[in-house]
Parts: sequence; C-alpha cells; structure tokens
Amino acid sequence: MIGTFPNKAAIVAAARSLPASDSASVAAATSHDADLTKPAGALARLEDCIRHLAGWQQQPVPRLDTVAILIFAGNHGVTTRGVSAYPAEVTVQMVANFERGGAAINQLAKLHGATLSVMPLDLASPTEDFTTAPAMGEVAFLDAINRGAAAVPASADLVILGEMGIGNTTAAAALAAALYGGDAASWVGPGTGVAGSALAAKITAVDTALSLHGDAMRDDPLEALRRVGGRELAALFGAVLAARHNRIPVLLDGFVVGAAVAVLAKLADGGLSHCLAGHASAEPGHRRLLEALKLQPLLDLGMRLGEGSGAAVALGVLKAAVACHAGMATFSSAGVSNKS
Amino acid sequence: MIGTFPNKAAIVAAARSLPASDSASVAAATSHDADLTKPAGALARLEDCIRHLAGWQQQPVPRLDTVAILIFAGNHGVTTRGVSAYPAEVTVQMVANFERGGAAINQLAKLHGATLSVMPLDLASPTEDFTTAPAMGEVAFLDAINRGAAAVPASADLVILGEMGIGNTTAAAALAAALYGGDAASWVGPGTGVAGSALAAKITAVDTALSLHGDAMRDDPLEALRRVGGRELAALFGAVLAARHNRIPVLLDGFVVGAAVAVLAKLADGGLSHCLAGHASAEPGHRRLLEALKLQPLLDLGMRLGEGSGAAVALGVLKAAVACHAGMATFSSAGVSNKS
Repeated sequence: MIGTFPNKAAIVAAARSLPASDSASVAAATSHDADLTKPAGALARLEDCIRHLAGWQQQPVPRLDTVAILIFAGNHGVTTRGVSAYPAEVTVQMVANFERGGAAINQLAKLHGATLSVMPLDLASPTEDFTTAPAMGEVAFLDAINRGAAAVPASADLVILGEMGIGNTTAAAALAAALYGGDAASWVGPGTGVAGSALAAKITAVDTALSLHGDAMRDDPLEALRRVGGRELAALFGAVLAARHNRIPVLLDGFVVGAAVAVLAKLADGGLSHCLAGHASAEPGHRRLLEALKLQPLLDLGMRLGEGSGAAVALGVLKAAVACHAGMATFSSAGVSNKS
Repeated sequence: MIGTFPNKAAIVAAARSLPASDSASVAAATSHDADLTKPAGALARLEDCIRHLAGWQQQPVPRLDTVAILIFAGNHGVTTRGVSAYPAEVTVQMVANFERGGAAINQLAKLHGATLSVMPLDLASPTEDFTTAPAMGEVAFLDAINRGAAAVPASADLVILGEMGIGNTTAAAALAAALYGGDAASWVGPGTGVAGSALAAKITAVDTALSLHGDAMRDDPLEALRRVGGRELAALFGAVLAARHNRIPVLLDGFVVGAAVAVLAKLADGGLSHCLAGHASAEPGHRRLLEALKLQPLLDLGMRLGEGSGAAVALGVLKAAVACHAGMATFSSAGVSNKS
C-alpha cells in the first residue's frame, strides 16, 4: 500500500520500488492448466490471462469475484480551441448519466457483476488551456494523482481503469507525443468524431503544446503529465501505481487510459507488467501506443467510447478464462486419454 | 421450419429457399442505437452485432435469454492413418466429460447461462476411411443431416454450433479443399497438435482423398460433405440450415464448423448471412476459410479447442452488445447534449 504523495520525488520513488508478480503462483497455475481436459495450449490467450491473474493475485486459481471499475472524469481548458465534437458540459452530463445508471459502462458493470465508481475531479474548474500554460499547477497535479491512488481498493481481484472528459483525446495525444516522440498528426485522431477543421484545430493545439512545453517535458514523464495531461489522466496514473503496490491486476481501456499509464512505463521498466490491454481502440494513436507499451489487446472491435467500456467488454474474456481454469476436469479425474 | 429430408434434392431445395433478415427490425434497432448516450458508431462491432441479432430475431431490441449450444460428435475412419495427436477413443471420453460437466464448454455455458446439448453420432461406428471410400453412404449421410436439423430448437435467441471428433480437422481440411480448391498443405494444420510425420500423414491423407473423390465432388458441395466429411460435419450442416429456416441467428466456432457450414454458402449465395463468426482459430485453414466466407471473426485469441469454445467466449461480446443496447439511456431521457 502507498500513502499520500507529498511531492513528485515521492512519486518517482514509489514508481521505482514496484512489487513483482508471484512466480510460484504462476508456476502452480501453469501446472494445473496442463492437467485440464484439453490439448496443451488450446486455450491460448486465455491461458496467458490466467498466468497473469494468478501471479498478481498470488494464487494458483485466480478469481474475478470482486472487480472494481474506476472512472475518472475531468474537464479541459483546451476545449476552447474547438477540439471536440461535443460541448464541454457533456462531461458533467455524462457523470450524471453514470450516476443514474444510463451509460454503456453501467450496463457492462451490471452484466459482469462489477462495482462501478465514478470520480468527478473538479469539473467546475477545467484545467488550464495547455496551448498557453501548464494544464495543472503542482498542487492540483499532486491532488489528482493522490485522488486516483486513493480510489484503488486495498484488495480486489481486478481493477478496470476508464475515463470521461470532453477534450481528453487531445490531452492524450499531446502526452503520447511528449513521451514517445512524433508530431501531433501522428497521435491525433477523431476522438468522439471530429473531422475537417475541428481535426485540424486538434492537431494545431497539440503542435502548439509540444512547442510550448517540449523542453520542460523532455525526459520528465511526470512533468509531461502535469503540463499536457488533465486531472483524470493524473488520477489514472495514480491509480495504476497504487494498484501495482496493492498487487492488483489492472485491465486497461483505450487511448486516454493508455497515455496516462504510459507515464509509469516511462518511469520504470516493467512498470505496467501488472496490466492487460482490454482492447485496441479505433483511435489510431492507441494502436501505436500499445505497440510502444508492448501490450497486446484482448479485443479489436473498433470501439471508441471510453468510460472503461472496451475493458469491460474484455472482462468477459477474463471471466471465461477463469471459469475454464477453475471448473474444468483433469485428464485423470475425467478418465480422458492424454496425447499419444 | 423444415421437416425431415428424404433425399439430397430436398436438401438442395431447402438451401435455395432461405428466409431473409427482417429489414424493419434492423432499421428500428439502428434508429434506437442512434439515440443512445454515446457518439454515433462508438460501439462499432457491438452495434453491427445488434443489427444482426435484431434482423434475425425480428425485434428491434434483441435478447440473449435463450442460447442453445449444440455440440455434435463423430468418429472418423481416417484416424487409422495416424492423423491425430490423440487416440480415437478420446471422442467417447470427451462426450462423457461433457455429460459430467468437466469440459471447457461446460464452464462457458454455465458462465453465460446457455443450455448445452451434446449429440454423439454413432461413435461406435466410425465413418469409412475417406482415403479409400466415401466417408458415409447415402443413408448414413442423410441421417446425420436430419439429426443435426432436428437438434435445432423451434425458437431460440441464438444457436452456437460446436463439435468434437478426433480426426475431424483432417476431414475439415479435405472438405475445405474440395469446396474452395487448393492443395492439402494449404488447408491442413496441426489440429490438436500434430507435427512432423503425423502432420505429413495428415497432408497425405487429404491429398489422397482429393485424388480419389475429386471428380465426384466437383460442383457438388453435398457430395463433398458425404465423401470427405463426417457425421458431425453433416449434422452441423443440417443444423445451420434448420436454424436459418427457423430464423435463429447462429454463432460459429472454428475450422471444423466453418468447413461444414461452408457447404450451405456454396449451395446458396448469402446462405450464411444469419451467421456470425465467433473467433479466428489458430488452425491456419480457418482464417483462409473465413476470408472465403467473408466472415469477420469477433475474437482472435489463438484458441484451438473446438467444442464450441471460441464461439462461447464470443457470446460474452454479444451479451455486452445486447446489455448496452437494451439498457442505455437516450440523449433526451438523460439530458445529455448531442454532438454540436
């Protein structure tokens, strides 16, 4: 468990003292899998998922009884640049929709028996427009990270990270470019559906931010997160860091989540080894980001909704893996002949 | 509803009088989807699945309350050619495992609340070795097709087709080659895990079958199914035909199911338009077959177990689609601003 971070140095220290997966549980899960009534390896990625869950849950037969979906919401000053297809007030409206149970993620949480927690982060006070100033001051930045970390339960079988924030694919594109290089056009995509002049405005906003903050962000992933991220991105970073210290496996959603947690990958080799990629978003930058993170998505269904929805659909694949691993008969118990 | 087929002519007639998807239900589902609190198209493949289910279920808000998983099992004379990694008695043993609830498909059926029906087809009498004779005589062939058709319920929200049969990826490869051309090596794969001399024996068996039966199978898909298929493949063909006449959407599993139902695609343009491809199997011929059938798989997880397991994992994606479509709030009801 990690406490409240008083400053950036404490965050860097936490990012560089990460616990590892439990290799004994992975070995025990692998051994049990080899006994199940199927050809070795026939469940493929499902078996990989079992090893992942077993190692982080530290048990040979992983469970998915307590799954916590955490959605962080933030507002972005850069929306005044005309970067989104939707007005900024939709962030507040969608948070209300989450709270009333009307969004896609509510239906998916209910389908899978997962708990859904929505954390709106100072929606009445958007971040600064990062084309002219850092998105967040030091105090607001630390506060968002700490709120993200505090939202992670002390124990859970799995955490799913999602987000909501009109304008936040612009922030994600700027952050990805700051972390991995490349110009704005190579990371910016349609988000909720911009094209033409709005897409051009989005690219211009990211290019302007990279020019303004480039020197200050170089080799400093946290500073990049503060300058071109947003409150929900900072919270997502705090959450993925806390989940790792709590040894809780994490299932990632799309582009915005990917950009936020990439900060941890940049701070520490293997920083995201407790994470699975739920899906590849239709947002073009996401595929590029997954390649950079060496994460293979479980699903590739063209989804681009955010709010944790892609990961929540992928939760069905993990549930299938766990059901097979926990419930199948072994060759000897079932009287089935093994490979000749 | 179709009755018992007295002869091949009756099957061909049924294959050429197929009902269509209900376009009014598709239009109503599309219209409802456009109202839901998400950017238009943001659920992508999930929205495609809704239109598919709505059209075949003939209702604008599709359901997945009654899902019937049908597993057909058969034994194959060609196993004496050393084409499988497992002894032929494993077919009977696995059927017993299904009946006791110990296989992967049992866990997946339970996870999703689907009913599982297992139809062993004369397992004590394997088909003839198709490297020397047609796999089935006319009577056995018609009987297997009729048993497959009879296994399909009069109504259900979805049917999943799966199979079990040591040696049946050899039959599927021979059938795919007969239907789509290409030599044995381009359709034969490791199946349950053969390599080296067993893989060579498998290729030889298919090549021999193609030489022996090639002329008789040319432009006659049903004759190909009889000569190089197997009882479970014939039953799968009967089932996909009956499901179409009952207007029940079908979720297909892997290579063996794909080869069996391809017979209907060959008999009638659009013959498989009621089918969704659950997954792309690791068996290399399956991807090639999906391309020939113009079916895009929902999942690509490297699975190669058969018994309907890939489709049953994909059922989770369909359940997610239905949960979102049926449960989400609309823009007006939720007070969320639509695209500006």
